[in-house]
Amino acid sequence: MKKIISPAPLLYPSPVLLICTYGSDGRPNAMTAAWGGICCSEPPCLSLGIQKSRHTWDNITERGEFMVCIPSETLVSETDFFGIASGRHLDKFAETGLTPVASDVIDAPYIEECPMALACRARDRMHIGSHTLIIGEILSIQADEEVCGEDGMPSIDKVRPLLYDAHTKMYYSVGENAGKAFSSGLKFRQNVYEP
Amino acid sequence: MKKIISPAPLLYPSPVLLICTYGSDGRPNAMTAAWGGICCSEPPCLSLGIQKSRHTWDNITERGEFMVCIPSETLVSETDFFGIASGRHLDKFAETGLTPVASDVIDAPYIEECPMALACRARDRMHIGSHTLIIGEILSIQADEEVCGEDGMPSIDKVRPLLYDAHTKMYYSVGENAGKAFSSGLKFRQNVYEP
Repeated sequence: MKKIISPAPLLYPSPVLLICTYGSDGRPNAMTAAWGGICCSEPPCLSLGIQKSRHTWDNITERGEFMVCIPSETLVSETDFFGIASGRHLDKFAETGLTPVASDVIDAPYIEECPMALACRARDRMHIGSHTLIIGEILSIQADEEVCGEDGMPSIDKVRPLLYDAHTKMYYSVGENAGKAFSSGLKFRQNVYEP
Repeated sequence: MKKIISPAPLLYPSPVLLICTYGSDGRPNAMTAAWGGICCSEPPCLSLGIQKSRHTWDNITERGEFMVCIPSETLVSETDFFGIASGRHLDKFAETGLTPVASDVIDAPYIEECPMALACRARDRMHIGSHTLIIGEILSIQADEEVCGEDGMPSIDKVRPLLYDAHTKMYYSVGENAGKAFSSGLKFRQNVYEP
């Protein structure tokens, strides 16, 4: 029997993302976001919840494209700063020393120091409440060679992304490997139907 | 300069969730999902990407309510089984020994052994491609006393949720605390504007 607690936007874990865009003046900007996740496999898409008051909202609306960078745990202070300050009032890249780089794929910058980035084109939106949902189709992934495994794909072990606890407002690292999917569950029954 | 990789639904980290519903025959069911995240603060909402071919899709469509349970790392094999088998063909609760409990709040069950669950009412949907997005308003949180901190809220340290790497199909645990948000970034500049 569980106790009942008031509703809150609390899902464990939430990701820590840097949404990178160009402003109407061409200046690169980024904001930290935890309201998001993959929402479709084919075409590969992610969804983000963004407040319309955000500078990033204006930028995505104008340009239609954005980069979702995944910062590694070594960038926790820089990442935090991108969630505190607004690009309307200062240049967050200049303040933190991070480097915006023009993407070859879309009209948005990525952050050189982030090991991995998803190039996205906004394809739909839905107003919800305080936040509006943006669906981004992932057009390509960009990653540093150093975080890619033998198969050429970025590995979570090497990317070392952050997680976010929205209640205590704490960042966490990724921990130990806890087992293989579509595998450890077979101990309960081998002859299962495909889902 | 980053190398460019083909698009894929790959965001680090993705959550590991158990979506619990009742079937048209009243039987409890659950499926494992990693395509989801918080999408709005007020009202608190989450989004899930679900294939329309899923038994869970039928159940949510019929009942309009669902429970998002967060399994702890100790339940990794049970959680994996819920993602392999379909509730159309067998009773996943009976196979794994997990216990469905009727919620007092919504018309959906939660899993007694999961430390935390979010009671959700479906409020909107959007077709994307292989998956359809469902927006669920979080009506309440249910949690075990043992995973709640002094403030009465479930803590990520005690819930010990799983993360998912969709590329290697590996589960991971939560690691170390990596710092406080809205805090460590202030070292770059104190007098920032509110975002």
